[in-house]
Amino acid sequence: MSEQNGTAEQQEREQALVEQVVASFETAKDPRLKQLTQALTRHLHAFLREVRPTEAEWASAIEFLTAAGHITDDKRQEFILLSDVLGASMQTIAINNEACANATEATVLGPFFVEGSPGIPLGGDISFGAAGQPCWVEGTVTGTDGEPVPGARIEVWEADEDGFYDVQYDDDRMAARGHLVADERGHYRFWAITPTPYPIPHDGPVGALLAAVGRSPMRASHLHFDVRADGKRTLITHIFVRGDELLTSDAVFGVKDSLIHDFVEHPAATPTPDGRDVAGRAWSSVRFDIVLAPAQTGVCE
Amino acid sequence: MSEQNGTAEQQEREQALVEQVVASFETAKDPRLKQLTQALTRHLHAFLREVRPTEAEWASAIEFLTAAGHITDDKRQEFILLSDVLGASMQTIAINNEACANATEATVLGPFFVEGSPGIPLGGDISFGAAGQPCWVEGTVTGTDGEPVPGARIEVWEADEDGFYDVQYDDDRMAARGHLVADERGHYRFWAITPTPYPIPHDGPVGALLAAVGRSPMRASHLHFDVRADGKRTLITHIFVRGDELLTSDAVFGVKDSLIHDFVEHPAATPTPDGRDVAGRAWSSVRFDIVLAPAQTGVCE
Repeated sequence: MSEQNGTAEQQEREQALVEQVVASFETAKDPRLKQLTQALTRHLHAFLREVRPTEAEWASAIEFLTAAGHITDDKRQEFILLSDVLGASMQTIAINNEACANATEATVLGPFFVEGSPGIPLGGDISFGAAGQPCWVEGTVTGTDGEPVPGARIEVWEADEDGFYDVQYDDDRMAARGHLVADERGHYRFWAITPTPYPIPHDGPVGALLAAVGRSPMRASHLHFDVRADGKRTLITHIFVRGDELLTSDAVFGVKDSLIHDFVEHPAATPTPDGRDVAGRAWSSVRFDIVLAPAQTGVCE
Repeated sequence: MSEQNGTAEQQEREQALVEQVVASFETAKDPRLKQLTQALTRHLHAFLREVRPTEAEWASAIEFLTAAGHITDDKRQEFILLSDVLGASMQTIAINNEACANATEATVLGPFFVEGSPGIPLGGDISFGAAGQPCWVEGTVTGTDGEPVPGARIEVWEADEDGFYDVQYDDDRMAARGHLVADERGHYRFWAITPTPYPIPHDGPVGALLAAVGRSPMRASHLHFDVRADGKRTLITHIFVRGDELLTSDAVFGVKDSLIHDFVEHPAATPTPDGRDVAGRAWSSVRFDIVLAPAQTGVCE
């Protein structure tokens, strides 16, 4: 590296510049903003000094960000996609959901959560007409102490079998999303549809980047969960389908081993757990036992 | 740091994610693109793991980039401004203009260079009606070996006394820019206007960032140079005005001590070097001897 980075005089000039920029943020009154801008400066310059971009390469980076800005609108957020495919979203999630005993791991929220999903009763169906194979989901919600969490609020959402969320439909209907409340023993159960894979939007600069480096834009099949209860840390996560070939190449690095579950396939005409008539179709089932960390931080040493 | 960053299990999860993202770029066929994306991943995650952003802080960063994208158009480039105020533009310049004996230091190109400036003869005037105090500029162009560089092409441009470049005028006229050719001894001389300070565009997110951290958007007074000759490394630089109080707080970190020059003030009615009639006004003069590095790299050890 020292050869590549030139003479001592050159090193000195580069280091002096870093120090000058860091010092320029000393005037920040907000100590957190000072910390963030100074750390950003140090890491950004360390990157530049390591890779030593040509001026044309740096101009390309500026063009990339410009294109990302121009494709971003109310419905499309290319900078979140960029954060996702660089694993930055997932790292932020990891940082804000510290490992805590056997608490269920968190993963990315994704861009498809919307407020105001319909409430369903225990055993109800969140599909609301979304196309897909019926899937029975059940489990318990407990704390890391093993105690049930009665009344936990469970919100779920997912893509249909064509890989589209309701917000991607042409009309305004809600489908394949809903929320329910665990019973007094922390048990929950509902009908959904068997998750299927889909690509992140890849017709913009982030898609071009993935193509250039030979990466797939596909997300592994998953079902989103947002689970909340008084005194517990809110859990935002997915469950994934064991055996999905995309598990090892999820475009946004959302997969955690502990979140991969067995989706059991039941042939057509197999009786359903609640006696529901699924019109003679095959269906699947999965068990997902959720463990919530305490809301209070610093109790997971 | 280790306390703040949580348990060993937590550290392991974070590190595993970094390695997973780095590995995802292994498929890149272009080795340089692989190097750039993998290094970007490592430095970005090191930043995140150090500052440990809340999810709200990371969302603010996404919003900042989005706003920068939306204000950027054909005439306004907020991402270049961002790169400038973080010193990244200047670091890229430093990296691509390695220290070479006594060669004149480079600085940022800035957003106001345009192709097609008028040619002027030696001793001509680049102001073309731009408002400002007349300023006589002269010097020599030599190599690091001390030999004159006859026929070097010198392009210069600057803001007028109100702080505006011609491209910021409402009409399409060119002013305060031009190019000339050094004589057979490498000597050059021309009339310009005495440089004055001006702010970078600061009505967007970058301006808001500067305000939030208590930094000025002002650039120190300067005159831009682009100097080219066969067999020499192209030099893009400015000269700055000794005594300017903005020298230590230039918004884009463009100032180098070696680029600060004495602009000598001459009272009204003082005779000019070439006998030009400056209409009885005061004028200034500056000497800038330019030293060009060889074009060939690796000869400056």
